[in-house]
Formats: sequence, C-alpha cells, structure tokens
Amino acid sequence: MKALITGGGGFLGSRLAAALKARDPAAEITLLDVAFPPGLESKYRCIAGDVAAPEVIAKALARDTDSIFHLAAVVSGGAEADFDLGYHVNMDGTWKLLEAARKLAKPPRIVYTSSVAAFGGKMPDVLDDSTTPAPQTSYGTQKVIGEYLIADYTRKGYVDGRSLRLPTIVVRPGKPNLAASSFASSIIREPVTGVDVDCPVPDTTGVWILSPRRVVEAFVHAHDLPSEKWPTTRVVNLPGITLTVREMIDAMGRVVGEAATKRVRFVPDARIQAIVKTWPVRFRTERALAMGFKADESFDDVVRDFKASMAGA
Amino acid sequence: MKALITGGGGFLGSRLAAALKARDPAAEITLLDVAFPPGLESKYRCIAGDVAAPEVIAKALARDTDSIFHLAAVVSGGAEADFDLGYHVNMDGTWKLLEAARKLAKPPRIVYTSSVAAFGGKMPDVLDDSTTPAPQTSYGTQKVIGEYLIADYTRKGYVDGRSLRLPTIVVRPGKPNLAASSFASSIIREPVTGVDVDCPVPDTTGVWILSPRRVVEAFVHAHDLPSEKWPTTRVVNLPGITLTVREMIDAMGRVVGEAATKRVRFVPDARIQAIVKTWPVRFRTERALAMGFKADESFDDVVRDFKASMAGA
Repeated sequence: MKALITGGGGFLGSRLAAALKARDPAAEITLLDVAFPPGLESKYRCIAGDVAAPEVIAKALARDTDSIFHLAAVVSGGAEADFDLGYHVNMDGTWKLLEAARKLAKPPRIVYTSSVAAFGGKMPDVLDDSTTPAPQTSYGTQKVIGEYLIADYTRKGYVDGRSLRLPTIVVRPGKPNLAASSFASSIIREPVTGVDVDCPVPDTTGVWILSPRRVVEAFVHAHDLPSEKWPTTRVVNLPGITLTVREMIDAMGRVVGEAATKRVRFVPDARIQAIVKTWPVRFRTERALAMGFKADESFDDVVRDFKASMAGA
Repeated sequence: MKALITGGGGFLGSRLAAALKARDPAAEITLLDVAFPPGLESKYRCIAGDVAAPEVIAKALARDTDSIFHLAAVVSGGAEADFDLGYHVNMDGTWKLLEAARKLAKPPRIVYTSSVAAFGGKMPDVLDDSTTPAPQTSYGTQKVIGEYLIADYTRKGYVDGRSLRLPTIVVRPGKPNLAASSFASSIIREPVTGVDVDCPVPDTTGVWILSPRRVVEAFVHAHDLPSEKWPTTRVVNLPGITLTVREMIDAMGRVVGEAATKRVRFVPDARIQAIVKTWPVRFRTERALAMGFKADESFDDVVRDFKASMAGA
C-alpha cells in the first residue's frame, strides 16, 4: 500500500497512519498537512503546506499512490468565521486533490470525510439514508459539494471514491478547536484530566457520536470494501449513538468518579448554539450497518478508552 | 433594473432580455456569452468572453447591478464529452460569478438555472420536493453543486439566490446542440419546418417538458418573488408536463398535419439513450405551484406557439 493521508498531522490522521502501519508494516505512508506535531516526521514522509495548492498536492502524491484518505479540512466554526479559507481548503482543495488523483497511474481509492453537518433545516426526527442534505453552514455545504465531486469522478472512472458522513468524534484529545462541536469532547477531556470546563450548550442538547477508535476502523473498512459494495452516490452515513450532554456527563461520573462531573459549568454561547442546533441528532443507518460499519456499544466504554489513552500518553 | 444575463447570447437568454425590456423599457441589460448572434448587440450591452473568467465577469457587472440571471452553461452532452470544460464553466464559473456578485454594492438577486439532470439513479416513480439529487452526469453534478453554492452564499447574505430545476425546454429553435435532450426539440422543430429528422430514442421515451414561453415567465417570476417565499435551500423543481415522444409527435400531427409526423425516423443512439434514461420523467411540484410557477396546459399549444414564432421570424 502506498497511501496519502491529508490532514495527516491531525489527531485522526496520525491515528489512521498508525493503524495502517500496524496491519501492513511495509505500507508507504505520506502525511500532508499545514503543520505536524513532534514525532510524526520520524515515522512517516511528511509534507507541510497548503493542502489545497496543486504544487503541494503534487509533492505529496507519487505516480503509483494507490490510496488517499482525505481528512484535511477547515472545521465548522473555522469555515463559518473565514468564508474564503473554508471554500479554498474544503471545496477547492478537494477538487484540486481529485484533479491530481485523476492523473495517477491508476485510479486510487479515496476515502473522503464528510460530516453530518451535511444535514440541517427542516429535518425528520430520525434521519436515514434517503434524507436530502441541506447544510446550514458553509462547512456542511463544502462537505456536500465534495461528496458530489467524489461521486462524479468515481462515475467517470477517474478515482474509486468512498464518502463517509462522520458523526461528532468524541473524545478528541488535545486542545479545544474551532469546531462548533468542540465542546462535546471538552466536557469529558478537561474533567478527566482534572481541568474545569465551560459547556456552551444546555445539558439537554443531543449529540450524534462516534469514538476515535471506531472512526479509524471505519476509514480502514471504507477503504477495504470492494467498489461494488458502494452505492452510486458513494456516500454513507456512519453509525453512531445519540446522547445528551447530561448522559455524557453521567457516564463520565460512572467511569472516573462523581467529582469530575462537578468540573462542567454551563456558560451559554449563542454562536455555538446557533450552529449546533442545526445538526441532526438521530439516525437510522441501515446502509452503513449492512456494509459492515459499526457504532460504539456504550459511551462508558468510550470514556474508559479515553482515560486509558491519557494514561498511556 | 440593472441586470446581467449570462448565456445571454443563447435562445433563452435573448428571450428573457426581451421580456425584461418589454415590462421595463428603462431596464439596463448586459448580456454575457462566448458569442452573440446578429441583432443583439444593437439592443443590449454585450460582453463576449469566457463566462467563467473573473476579468470577464468583472467587465459584465456594474457596481450597482441588482439582478443576475445565470443561464450560461456547457450543456449535458458537452460536459460529458469535455469533462474539464464542464467543470470550468458550470462549477468554477458559477463560483466565480458568486464571488463577483458578493462584492457588489448590495446583494443582487440571482436566478440560477439548474436542471432535472440533478436527479438520477434509483428514483421513485414520481419525484417530489423531497427527492435527493443523485446526478448521473457531470452536467447534473455541476448543477447541483451550483445549487448548494447559491444556498450558502444566500444564507450568508452575500446574494439573494433562487435556483430553478428546469424541465427539458421544448421547442427550442435553431440548430440541434450537444444537449442529450436536443432530440426533444428536433423531433418537432425539423418536421414543422419541413425537414426530416432522426430520433435517437424509442417513441416510448418519456420527457418532462416546459415551453420556452413558460420558462421565461418562470425566470421573471423567480426573480420577482420576495426572498421570504423561498425555502432555505433556495431551490425549486419547476412544474412541467410529462409526454412520451409518441405523444409529442401525435400533437404535432394534430397541429401541423399528418405529413410532418412522417418526417421522424427512429435511429437509436446508445450514447444519447444512456444519458436520457437516467433522467426523471414524472414529478409532483407542489412547492413550485404554491409559489405561483406554472406548467404548460397542453402540448398542442406548445407546438402552435412554435409554429407561430417560426412564421414571425
């Protein structure tokens, strides 16, 4: 396997790189990102630069690259705050990557990370595989456009694309980011590591969740599935679990003790709430389950996993 | 009114320009297109050039342009034959136009012509306002991407966009073009003007049709509707009527005489059939009807209209 991971300097990208290496030590992996945390450059070929610039993409791809995992993106809050940057990276960057991919020796498999931010507006209580995307953010719009590009480039035989609409990934390690969903990790991460945290949304807020472990498994599974298992739209809503902020905090209390739950303070943020309330919370993901994708079984396990990874780090 | 019509050198663009002038003789109208037929340049400000080039768009727009009708496109067969050109004009061109529109003195109204080519794949027998676009051509893909751009730029307050998914427009005057739907006009236009014609699809083929008269009315109506009458997706499937090729030919026989129907010869074309069979044929267009858009009442009238326009030309 000769693979490129865009956004490879990020948390999911580097976990994915490790997973690919673990199952195939001979895998040649290139990471492309604006910057890299310490430790990655000794393990992988790392290219730093604008992920939407054709000359940077050209450097990151080899003629015989056969797999691309396109994770790079300006996150939801970031794309809302900087309209031009969001379109540059999320829409134009995806197009430029597909144009470069199209010129490789043979059509590469591309796993593309879309998002449930594709959905919004007037939605059914439970969304399913037939729900029409109607994003209410620029990020969601850019992700949907990427899906349509992936489908058309695949239809033409230029690439073999697979788009995954990711639930909110919880628990992310590290620092809060500009994603409007950042709170969903912070309310677990900070208390578990002994830090107080402000939650910008009410505790009745529902979130559609997938753990880092499961989403990395989903990237690999999406890559490995034969092309004919994919619908012509090439897109699937990943399975997740629905939890309210309160349920998440309660699970944390069970796993790490009641004291942690006291570290969450509710400090409403209208800007975050305005974005989050447009996101869907409940799904029936029949297609994904039939294709072999898996949700987390319990949020207690997700917190336990996170705690263990912190202890290991 | 200070208006720009992209694709203004085309048949619908020039009819629209005439309709706008007829209701407001003081309207200042600019047409933008790759080229213009004789007669237009004396009536309107005409800019010839690449409709997707920022410097050409800049020339076509005034700081106080308040209305844009974006009709310019590489048609379906053309975008399928020339992948790069289709993306350049239909996707990137629409984006560049929106970027220019965003910088005007105040957010202009933009009427954007999308298409029922947005739909395809596994479809219900009768499509409605909730059917998810799943284009099976690059043209359809580019049109859907344009819709999502229009919705997001409108949400941000940069423009006031309105997208119309056009049925197949019949009867188009002039010569056959690269649109896969070109036959739907040819089988009427050529016989009515005394010319033999090859029909590339079987006579059982269904087509979802709107006349030139009605679609120009729809452009003006879409423009004039208050912004709050539009859904947040800013897109509507225009009403049409469903006819088979046989029903169209029969109507022609009733209007211009039996002899004309003998001029249609069936010469299958696999390339055209492959595209046309992916298009939807039946719709329930409740939203459009509630918004005041109108379908043709009879195809006999459509043929009569065309015959009269030929006599007048």
